[in-house]
Amino acid sequence: MTQETYDLIIIGGGPGGYSAAIYAARYNMKTLVIAKERGGLITKTHLIENFPGIITATGFELMDKIEKHVKHYNIPIVDDIVIQAKKEGDNFKLTTQGEKEYIAKSVVLATGSNRRKLNILGEKEFDGKGVSYCATCDAMFFRGKDACIVGGSDSAAKEALMLSEHCKKVYIIYRQQKLRAEPINYDRVIAKDNIEIIYNTNIKEIKGEQVVQKVILDNEYKGSNELELQGVFIEIGQLPNSKIAKDLGCKLNDKDEIIVNREMRTNVQKVYAIGDVTDFKFRQAIVAASAGSISAWSAYTDLN
Amino acid sequence: MTQETYDLIIIGGGPGGYSAAIYAARYNMKTLVIAKERGGLITKTHLIENFPGIITATGFELMDKIEKHVKHYNIPIVDDIVIQAKKEGDNFKLTTQGEKEYIAKSVVLATGSNRRKLNILGEKEFDGKGVSYCATCDAMFFRGKDACIVGGSDSAAKEALMLSEHCKKVYIIYRQQKLRAEPINYDRVIAKDNIEIIYNTNIKEIKGEQVVQKVILDNEYKGSNELELQGVFIEIGQLPNSKIAKDLGCKLNDKDEIIVNREMRTNVQKVYAIGDVTDFKFRQAIVAASAGSISAWSAYTDLN
Repeated sequence: MTQETYDLIIIGGGPGGYSAAIYAARYNMKTLVIAKERGGLITKTHLIENFPGIITATGFELMDKIEKHVKHYNIPIVDDIVIQAKKEGDNFKLTTQGEKEYIAKSVVLATGSNRRKLNILGEKEFDGKGVSYCATCDAMFFRGKDACIVGGSDSAAKEALMLSEHCKKVYIIYRQQKLRAEPINYDRVIAKDNIEIIYNTNIKEIKGEQVVQKVILDNEYKGSNELELQGVFIEIGQLPNSKIAKDLGCKLNDKDEIIVNREMRTNVQKVYAIGDVTDFKFRQAIVAASAGSISAWSAYTDLN
Repeated sequence: MTQETYDLIIIGGGPGGYSAAIYAARYNMKTLVIAKERGGLITKTHLIENFPGIITATGFELMDKIEKHVKHYNIPIVDDIVIQAKKEGDNFKLTTQGEKEYIAKSVVLATGSNRRKLNILGEKEFDGKGVSYCATCDAMFFRGKDACIVGGSDSAAKEALMLSEHCKKVYIIYRQQKLRAEPINYDRVIAKDNIEIIYNTNIKEIKGEQVVQKVILDNEYKGSNELELQGVFIEIGQLPNSKIAKDLGCKLNDKDEIIVNREMRTNVQKVYAIGDVTDFKFRQAIVAASAGSISAWSAYTDLN
């Protein structure tokens, strides 16, 4: 049995990976996408209002449009996880959790990132019982209840806004003294009567019986270190999925993000990286989509 | 009369400029777009099939969607041409053909490029009388006639395909020996019965009476240096509109393109550049749109 060799295998199915697939198809490259989560992390995002040309869409809707575009070119998408990658002669051999092996002349790493955890008492115990990492997924379960968002980023502000549509009261608990949200989202947070920001404060512990009942703060808030609430949404950033990159010998920065140049090339020939797994700090769907197209162009150029 | 100072003025209204405007709006920056051609050069493109999420659209349709997105944020778009720019204290003063002056704290140059000319006898004389730089605009005038495309790029192939829908016969005249088109477009060209490629050949002169009647070739084709046809479509590349960049002291490369880094910063503080006017070689709507978003982010970061 001889194995077919792909010109390009794209690992990851977010806006970057899918965009790379669309361009690779137009270059007539024999292409495969391997993705464990179709659409990637962005499908968990409530509203996308800044993908130029699409005034408003949910993360899921946007990725559905882009996936249809990929399928228009008959690029196969395999639901699997690449667990190992290594160079074999001129090619790369990828091994998946599903115990398949794939051979590629070039590889685009679009493996994204995972959500960062607080690592405090009660976080694991109450995961799915009041603790959540995704307001898009879980906000509706907290209708009429009180919840907090932990974090101060733009994502945290957006998640707080979405929660405020469902919850009676939303606290933003942030260890710094000013939210880092886009001004438009900051203004929206401030305008909401049922959002309150608690600055310079961390959660030390999450407590409850079967479900979350309160959090313990490291600073007093209204005379107490305890805050009663039923939901804890943790939105404190992401960890890059760069294990496969490391296998292949790609240079990472101190945050374990893959270092890429303007053409999305890594230091390893015929290995490219795009999106949230890279060291480019501005993480937007439009930027990942562009990076995907560039990576396919670079791969096409390097093969010919 | 005191003049208002914009946080950001974007010069140019293509996918890059408009995308910068959308992001600047979301950053609550006081923003103005000055554009002589709404939508930019891409509105002259027949079909866009590689803007991820939009399977197919004309250049005009795509830009209409993106312009609506800009207008959704109430960003003013002024129809004018910036003819001069200079640093004045901490700000930039822009003077337009319409004799207006605008003051900005930061500037995004999204000035695009213009079409390159052959500079041969008859080219100017027959401009609009058989000579065209835009098949999208003029193909329908050549229904049932014979025409040629000059050039060998992907754009040239796409223009030839479009012409072939209208014309009896389409010649691609190219000085090199292999088209540089995307394979998918190359295959389409080859599959067309009414397209013929003449390699290793230049046009020396365009001849006619009132309108184009023939071209003179520098190589024999089917035993003659003359080729009878009614349309000459010139698609041989673009010249960057970097005069304003030069005014501001931006570093250009040997093609007069503005040199930018990954964050779209030029060498001049608070001046950014994106799209076809820059030295980034991969010229796609999705890439310009991404660059626009990045430039707004950089401008916002540098002002705060």
